[in-house]
Amino acid sequence: MDKSIMIGEILEKVRRENPLVHNITNVVVTNFTANGLLALGASPVMAYAPEEVGDMAKIAGALVLNMGTLNSAAVESMIIAGKSANAHGVPVIFDPVGAGATPYRTEMADRIIREVKVSIIRGNAGEIANIAGEQAEVKGVDTGDIQKNPIDLAVMAAQKLQTIIAVTGEEDVITDGLTTYVGRNGHPILTKVTGTGCLLTSVIGAFAAVEKNLLVAATSAVCTYGIAAELAAEKTVNQGPGSFQIEFLNQLAAVSDQEINEKSNVEKR
Amino acid sequence: MDKSIMIGEILEKVRRENPLVHNITNVVVTNFTANGLLALGASPVMAYAPEEVGDMAKIAGALVLNMGTLNSAAVESMIIAGKSANAHGVPVIFDPVGAGATPYRTEMADRIIREVKVSIIRGNAGEIANIAGEQAEVKGVDTGDIQKNPIDLAVMAAQKLQTIIAVTGEEDVITDGLTTYVGRNGHPILTKVTGTGCLLTSVIGAFAAVEKNLLVAATSAVCTYGIAAELAAEKTVNQGPGSFQIEFLNQLAAVSDQEINEKSNVEKR
Amino acid sequence: MDKSIMIGEILEKVRRENPLVHNITNVVVTNFTANGLLALGASPVMAYAPEEVGDMAKIAGALVLNMGTLNSAAVESMIIAGKSANAHGVPVIFDPVGAGATPYRTEMADRIIREVKVSIIRGNAGEIANIAGEQAEVKGVDTGDIQKNPIDLAVMAAQKLQTIIAVTGEEDVITDGLTTYVGRNGHPILTKVTGTGCLLTSVIGAFAAVEKNLLVAATSAVCTYGIAAELAAEKTVNQGPGSFQIEFLNQLAAVSDQEINEKSNVEKR
Repeated sequence: MDKSIMIGEILEKVRRENPLVHNITNVVVTNFTANGLLALGASPVMAYAPEEVGDMAKIAGALVLNMGTLNSAAVESMIIAGKSANAHGVPVIFDPVGAGATPYRTEMADRIIREVKVSIIRGNAGEIANIAGEQAEVKGVDTGDIQKNPIDLAVMAAQKLQTIIAVTGEEDVITDGLTTYVGRNGHPILTKVTGTGCLLTSVIGAFAAVEKNLLVAATSAVCTYGIAAELAAEKTVNQGPGSFQIEFLNQLAAVSDQEINEKSNVEKR
Repeated sequence: MDKSIMIGEILEKVRRENPLVHNITNVVVTNFTANGLLALGASPVMAYAPEEVGDMAKIAGALVLNMGTLNSAAVESMIIAGKSANAHGVPVIFDPVGAGATPYRTEMADRIIREVKVSIIRGNAGEIANIAGEQAEVKGVDTGDIQKNPIDLAVMAAQKLQTIIAVTGEEDVITDGLTTYVGRNGHPILTKVTGTGCLLTSVIGAFAAVEKNLLVAATSAVCTYGIAAELAAEKTVNQGPGSFQIEFLNQLAAVSDQEINEKSNVEKR
Repeated sequence: MDKSIMIGEILEKVRRENPLVHNITNVVVTNFTANGLLALGASPVMAYAPEEVGDMAKIAGALVLNMGTLNSAAVESMIIAGKSANAHGVPVIFDPVGAGATPYRTEMADRIIREVKVSIIRGNAGEIANIAGEQAEVKGVDTGDIQKNPIDLAVMAAQKLQTIIAVTGEEDVITDGLTTYVGRNGHPILTKVTGTGCLLTSVIGAFAAVEKNLLVAATSAVCTYGIAAELAAEKTVNQGPGSFQIEFLNQLAAVSDQEINEKSNVEKR
């Protein structure tokens, strides 16, 4: 287990600095994303109009682009915001929700990656395989069967797309193509609540806003998120996904840096 | 009480097969709809762009169209998706939210029904009366006073529109114009949580994806939903609509086929 | 403490009359807004299409305009709805979310105020300062440092914009520029849940729909809301923002007129 990353300290920095995280995200998860970021200690803003996204992105600590319910107007706004973030040194985190489910999603994901310099991409194995040009089954917005193991997949995608890749699932793999972290925090009930992947991408944004080493930031966010989920699942055992969802917001606010440092299960490969 | 429909068995089939339910729905209820479908065991996807709705609808187990916060672009997408579903044998479930509240809503509901072959329509009495050409008071998106009793109304609408009609309210009536089921499960606190009607329409979609007899599918969905509400109301008595809403998600996940078969209150007319 | 306003009685009137509140609001808070209004006893409707907003606004008890995730189409709809409300004597409540955060937001807020006769504007100190032409820091959609004290700011804005202003924060100030109420109900955890300001604006709409003295209506709404928050915070102490959010919905439904009249902390200046 790699204790060289001081994950708890980065979480405390998020809470101290309340970074502004600009999200251009989908209509399913906006409320949950904003509440999750607030609970964590960040300051969320959702702004979508092409007339203002450039101005908002440049004052943000991070820009999160999520194509869950994309349309052509949203893609234009994402690209304007992304270019503004690029010009002002604001890290851009991308969530290619459902890439591969329809040709349009795959094309739009490609276009965003081509036109915006993305710092970190987070997705499930199916989505990452698709944006890296592998054939992979995607069922709606959920992953299907993937040929490669997630570590090989993530490393390949990071090298091909020249960015940090986080493939999350049973095992989480975060890599820049050279250094790879494998995390094993989290809980299966996360798959029973909509937007838990999307919120994680935004939480990566909050960490990236306060920690310049973006590979460390992404790994720390994934680990913190998984531990909050474990704690929430423990507290709501035998209750169900409704209770878990609420307790998860509680735990994002409550989890301490000590708990994070104790429970983190991250291995450097 | 009609025990010839094996409602619990159909619920178990939803959980086993995790059907993909493609929703084009309103911005108020997207999160609750996705979480409700996930809790139940289905696999929700929301996709709205005209460039992709045809591709998404054809791989779905059911397509749900909900006009709660409609606009002209959404109606175009609904029609593209609906025609694709029709071409590929995917059942289309329609929720004419607020039909009758404004002339625009009534017109758009008529247009959707005219251009798409809809398999099941679910609404409150006011909405169903309006799409069937009756005068009926609608207050915003809530039903007003209706002349006809719900059974007569549902049968009339089913015959006129040549589709399955589910009129839900204190009593639920599900009919294809020939065979009629009357259900009495449910709880009044459902009216204190937004989107409970919309989620029910999507749950009907999940059942329609796994049960070919669509009248049985719709009836089973309405009954299952009502029982989950009863269980949630029992567990949150004296707490309020916030707690009910969360416990309802828990119960959609927890309710067993035996409980469903025991508590179902459905009568064949 | 000013007991001349019978706040509890106005709340009971909301519950008795279930006023239709038409909201054109942002995608982050739609679900929470609808559930909050339902819990309180009002009847929410969200309708955004330019083809119908005029028809919906004229039958509503109040129209609430919220620019949290504004775009040009939404602004057009807000102006159509606002003009219809003006023509039919329906009070218009405006929430200039994030005014000052980007030039576009400030311009659109100005345009709405110029083209629609707004009865009440609610915002945080930063937003109100910006729409009144003061320089003020706004961080995303949260308030920054403000020069003026909130009472002077609210009175100045009310006089300049010729409308009722509610500046909410640690202290709430509600004024028409001549008579000023200062309220001290509420709880800091409200800032950890997204949309609590937006929902308050819609709750002001519900009160304005049943109480013709709009200064009294706005003050009563702010006070009721703050007391429900206090009760919810007491019941969820040491739990977190997830639990608070749910209990807050419970308390909006449960709080009695007696509790309101006992706990109200409103001072007339």
